[in-house]
Amino acid sequence: MALVVQKYIGSALVGADRIKQVAERIVASYNAGNDVVVVASAMAGETDRLIAQARTISLAPEGRDYDLLLATGEQVTVGLLGICLTSMGYQARSYLGWQVPITTDAVPARASIKQIDPAGIRDDLRRGSIVIVAGFQGIDSRGNVTTLGRGGADTSAVALAEALGAEVCELYTDVEGVFTADPAVCRDARKIAKISYDEMLELAGLGEKVIQIRALEYAKKYQVDIHIRSAFSDSTGTLVTKEDAYMEGVVVSGVVYDKSEAKIAVIGVPDKPGVAARILTTLADADISVDMIVQNVSQTGLADLTFTVAKSDLHQAYGITGEITRELGAQNLIADEHISKISIVGLGMRNHAGVAARMFTALAFNNINIQMISTSEIKVAVAIDEKYTELAVRVLHDTFGLAA
Amino acid sequence: MALVVQKYIGSALVGADRIKQVAERIVASYNAGNDVVVVASAMAGETDRLIAQARTISLAPEGRDYDLLLATGEQVTVGLLGICLTSMGYQARSYLGWQVPITTDAVPARASIKQIDPAGIRDDLRRGSIVIVAGFQGIDSRGNVTTLGRGGADTSAVALAEALGAEVCELYTDVEGVFTADPAVCRDARKIAKISYDEMLELAGLGEKVIQIRALEYAKKYQVDIHIRSAFSDSTGTLVTKEDAYMEGVVVSGVVYDKSEAKIAVIGVPDKPGVAARILTTLADADISVDMIVQNVSQTGLADLTFTVAKSDLHQAYGITGEITRELGAQNLIADEHISKISIVGLGMRNHAGVAARMFTALAFNNINIQMISTSEIKVAVAIDEKYTELAVRVLHDTFGLAA
Repeated sequence: MALVVQKYIGSALVGADRIKQVAERIVASYNAGNDVVVVASAMAGETDRLIAQARTISLAPEGRDYDLLLATGEQVTVGLLGICLTSMGYQARSYLGWQVPITTDAVPARASIKQIDPAGIRDDLRRGSIVIVAGFQGIDSRGNVTTLGRGGADTSAVALAEALGAEVCELYTDVEGVFTADPAVCRDARKIAKISYDEMLELAGLGEKVIQIRALEYAKKYQVDIHIRSAFSDSTGTLVTKEDAYMEGVVVSGVVYDKSEAKIAVIGVPDKPGVAARILTTLADADISVDMIVQNVSQTGLADLTFTVAKSDLHQAYGITGEITRELGAQNLIADEHISKISIVGLGMRNHAGVAARMFTALAFNNINIQMISTSEIKVAVAIDEKYTELAVRVLHDTFGLAA
Repeated sequence: MALVVQKYIGSALVGADRIKQVAERIVASYNAGNDVVVVASAMAGETDRLIAQARTISLAPEGRDYDLLLATGEQVTVGLLGICLTSMGYQARSYLGWQVPITTDAVPARASIKQIDPAGIRDDLRRGSIVIVAGFQGIDSRGNVTTLGRGGADTSAVALAEALGAEVCELYTDVEGVFTADPAVCRDARKIAKISYDEMLELAGLGEKVIQIRALEYAKKYQVDIHIRSAFSDSTGTLVTKEDAYMEGVVVSGVVYDKSEAKIAVIGVPDKPGVAARILTTLADADISVDMIVQNVSQTGLADLTFTVAKSDLHQAYGITGEITRELGAQNLIADEHISKISIVGLGMRNHAGVAARMFTALAFNNINIQMISTSEIKVAVAIDEKYTELAVRVLHDTFGLAA
């Protein structure tokens, strides 16, 4: 008998059949003797539909009414799940964000959870109810409905698990768990049974879309165990938890790739302080995020600055950079959309020297040229020509012995 | 400068163009110097869509989760209207039922408003905001979201007008107002400028679908002036208000018809006490409403009982009545779907004798046979063969001089 928080992805809640399947799964856990708190997302596509509706009215909809609008998506699934469980003969008690209450700050569309009062939910559980909570939404100190931003239901679930002292926060997704590599690329990719918060944060930042980064940071801070698993099968998924000795022994946990970035190279600018700062500040002012950054100085006293931005920002970033580099008298400006970022992540890198070297050697042996390198304590990422993406992933998966 | 409550019908809120038109109308009233409180319905068809969704999950969805689900319809339009007004540069403040709060009893799907706290709305108006309130919804004493039943936004609007002491409650509908007869049937039907609560209640009970009866009863009780007008034109509509000397001088205000009922006649039952009671009680137990009832006794000591039910209830009502009449040994049981109810309504009937007689004479003169009669203080209704519906309406419209 444990207290379990279960969060369901929107694609598991589209249509009566899937909602009934989710209800069956909830009931199975309840009948196994667990206290169950369910966090519902909006049906897949619903939030986009609401955003599109708002955009027919205003080019840049925002503010409290926008949050009010978006919050209806989860309200619908909460209502339908409640009706379903009740019709199956179970006692279900639903909560919108303000009914819990889940108190947030007042930042519209990207609010942060400040506090959760678990008293009402605890009472319901004590009385034998299954509790259903609307994810993604809360209430600010002035009584406005707020929303937590894309993927916010993950954060709702983790925060509820923490507030209730749940044994585990189960995230029911559309994948079986976290794999050593994309199974579509590596046939022998293996599901990872257990992974640390830090590794998962690196993976989540690098293209694994399975969990929202903010939820992970919250889980790490409060040491909430997360079980990432499939809403469409019964198999065990991946447990995201605190580090243990076993995890530290694994040098590389997984290989990920990301094709969503593009590269801009500024060639031959005078190597004076502040050049990179000026370009990057101007991009930041335009709300363009820069990921990898490399600068090298040639013997002629001219520097090359290379960085990556999201492909969707490339056009704008190229224009901004072009203006500045003309002023600075750069020799050339190159944009390249055909790059891919390949990363290896693993706690064991901290204690095992030469991991990066093994990675570069393996890539070189397969004639894959490395354009940029970026590292953290538990990650090495390289930018390569996009066409070698799948090859590079397979090579590294083999090199670090990740196959099943 | 007045305080005005404006309620918009769902068909005026479908799609960006119509929402913008509604916003223009709100702003026009605001710019004319009025304090404006807007009550929004769900988009036309939205509540049906939500009900259909719930029915894919449960055959008879009900309870707090069902109300939670249905309440999203108005939340969407409130959000969109707020976004629209804000994008036009106006200060708008939106309220869901629980945010006002609009306190109701705890009857799910058909809650009644108990109390409205207007303090927050008054503050907003003082600060120059346009206020938008979600119709159809409230909150019960335990913090559950409740809904007021079909057409409940009318009641929300009237109750808000009363709580705020508004000068008028404007109901923006899809018709130009209340007419002396259906303009589709009588080309010379005239829009009624002013009508009493009691007359409007009779008309609303007789087929005028332009306003919810509960809202009218509320308006009558608290003497709230209602202006029924079109959301799609600028012309003045019909003012529903308390009686005055002029209204009492008008013998007949309007003629209405209703084709939604069917007739059941029980022929030749022993004329003993309790026969009608037994049939009507059994129908009531089956949740079937009976409208007109006529019983006449022949000289043989046998009675005929005739009554009308909604056409949609006819099959079930016929079966129930058949069982009882077999037991009672009735001679015959007849069902007739081809009837129509024609009614004349007018305050002046109280003081003018012979109104019913003029009605019956006019119908007889046109060879329209009267099958049943039912009267109230300010109404005479007859059931006739359905095929004479339009003829009867025109004849009576002429007879009582209602033409423009």
